[in-house]
Amino acid sequence: MLNRLGKQTLLFRNRPKVVGSYSVVGPKEGRGNFGKFFDKILEDDLFGEKSYEAAESKMLKLAITEAINNAKINKDEIDALFAGDLMNQIISSSFAARKLDIPYLGLFGACSTMAESLIMGSCYVDGGFARYAACATGSHFSSAEKQFRFPLELGTQRPPTSQWTVTGTGCTILGNTSTSNIYIENATIGKVVDWNVTDANNMGAAMAPAAMSTLKAHLDDTGRTPEDYDLILTGDLGKLGSEILMDLMEYNGYKIGNNYNDCGQMIFSNTQKTFMGGSGCGCGASILNSYIYSRMRNNELKSVLFIATGALMSTVSSQQGNSIPSIAHAVSIKIEGSK
Amino acid sequence: MLNRLGKQTLLFRNRPKVVGSYSVVGPKEGRGNFGKFFDKILEDDLFGEKSYEAAESKMLKLAITEAINNAKINKDEIDALFAGDLMNQIISSSFAARKLDIPYLGLFGACSTMAESLIMGSCYVDGGFARYAACATGSHFSSAEKQFRFPLELGTQRPPTSQWTVTGTGCTILGNTSTSNIYIENATIGKVVDWNVTDANNMGAAMAPAAMSTLKAHLDDTGRTPEDYDLILTGDLGKLGSEILMDLMEYNGYKIGNNYNDCGQMIFSNTQKTFMGGSGCGCGASILNSYIYSRMRNNELKSVLFIATGALMSTVSSQQGNSIPSIAHAVSIKIEGSK
Repeated sequence: MLNRLGKQTLLFRNRPKVVGSYSVVGPKEGRGNFGKFFDKILEDDLFGEKSYEAAESKMLKLAITEAINNAKINKDEIDALFAGDLMNQIISSSFAARKLDIPYLGLFGACSTMAESLIMGSCYVDGGFARYAACATGSHFSSAEKQFRFPLELGTQRPPTSQWTVTGTGCTILGNTSTSNIYIENATIGKVVDWNVTDANNMGAAMAPAAMSTLKAHLDDTGRTPEDYDLILTGDLGKLGSEILMDLMEYNGYKIGNNYNDCGQMIFSNTQKTFMGGSGCGCGASILNSYIYSRMRNNELKSVLFIATGALMSTVSSQQGNSIPSIAHAVSIKIEGSK
Repeated sequence: MLNRLGKQTLLFRNRPKVVGSYSVVGPKEGRGNFGKFFDKILEDDLFGEKSYEAAESKMLKLAITEAINNAKINKDEIDALFAGDLMNQIISSSFAARKLDIPYLGLFGACSTMAESLIMGSCYVDGGFARYAACATGSHFSSAEKQFRFPLELGTQRPPTSQWTVTGTGCTILGNTSTSNIYIENATIGKVVDWNVTDANNMGAAMAPAAMSTLKAHLDDTGRTPEDYDLILTGDLGKLGSEILMDLMEYNGYKIGNNYNDCGQMIFSNTQKTFMGGSGCGCGASILNSYIYSRMRNNELKSVLFIATGALMSTVSSQQGNSIPSIAHAVSIKIEGSK
């Protein structure tokens, strides 16, 4: 039997449950709009380590460990850890996994990784390949700036279309149990989309067409309209990218303004000078694993379509003059009893 | 129902079939021991491109496209492409996927990626989440040297424990059909293992403990002995790493000399001056997708345990003084009718 809907959407008939979650963010994120929802706010983004890379890895390990505790299970019951991040060779994830002694499958989907890991975890739990799966990702402002842009010490001026990489990690534990009423209903795997944006300081514009492509495929495959969700939430398009996505959807005959928002647009307050808002794997991961699940647990949100978007360039591909290929994956998260 | 054996092993009850495969290698690999088995040998490892990165991506796209043709299906029938490579932000895979219009999930497992992609593809096909899945990876000597070691133009002397990154790509198409007698029986997901090797020019020593850990877990989970396989084949431990693995297995009470080999040890001839042999995602990928499947199709090999190993460091993690975390994933590939 095929567990699919249409061309790009997977159907999880056994309804993998969100049985645990945890979020860790840096001090700046803690002072933003969602400070009261995050599970752990660091006082210092070095987190007692000697490098930002080590701090990022430690934050990821903490999110995974505490999400397992939050699920009230033992580490040994996690059959697979799906994790990835923005660092070259995803060292934050692999070095976190080194200390965890859990079977590990590394992912790279840039800032789409939270959705990608949920898709992988849902397949494993739904298909009986895992009792519990941990799905995690994160990013760190200082390690990302250093790797993708300039050393922080240079104090380089940021262009107005830029976004601020979120220092944050998040982990969701999925399991085939009845201990939670939040479940993963289905998911749409994205294709790589490239509309020839070459400006690495305008990720929102590069990623919006990918979000459009996946959202449209999701609606086509499921026969739904945007109004069928309480919330459609993109990962980190930021203010400009979100506007572009709304425009692109309108060209396709869909109005998504009322029940649509973007984690990048939401996470920082207007006084925090992040221009277009937040970005990075940790942006969607920290908001999903705190604010969103919290509102779902309280019955304030019954159906959320979480669409994490990723820009798939590297510094080398950009230096060689290539445009920015992007991708988006969508995950439909619901509470039991919702239509 | 759980589709698992023991602690780390997934069981594929619907027997996903290997319905297509293709391998592409560079000129040096073509002159090695398996020249007559590879599907395509390039005359020039730039493959008509302006950069080695672009050449690697083009080789990957060719392997995927031709594996689909080899499976005698249409591109539209591939429901998911699982691919990864060694480049920062896996640009070879993502730029290949950009031109393919197939739902894409990016992986990073360093040189373990061929096994990781087969595990992902098997789960998707076995669980009914995909009709057909493409599982691909590759590497390129010149792009890897530039990124991980030194510019080729420096002519840096290679240490005697070093391996030569294979210029090669491979793709396997998995499907739930009866058009092939080769199937994926089960797979063991590895944990990250780190025995404190810090020498990035001795990957075999860093990765051998991970191969031991996964092979031991596989035998424990399945209740088998090494003799139950016609061939146990590691991805790219090279000559030294293979010897270390044999020693480590002997310490654990298993003799694996007779039916054991390593793609890194096999791929180049002794006159090709590669010291410990081949390495890179493309090493195991090109041999599995040519020589191994060919011998299985001819009934010369009936059961193969393919164990791809990956070293999960980055240049930054090494420069910061970290040791090299490693991983290995094992895939049991059999022909119908074998025990």
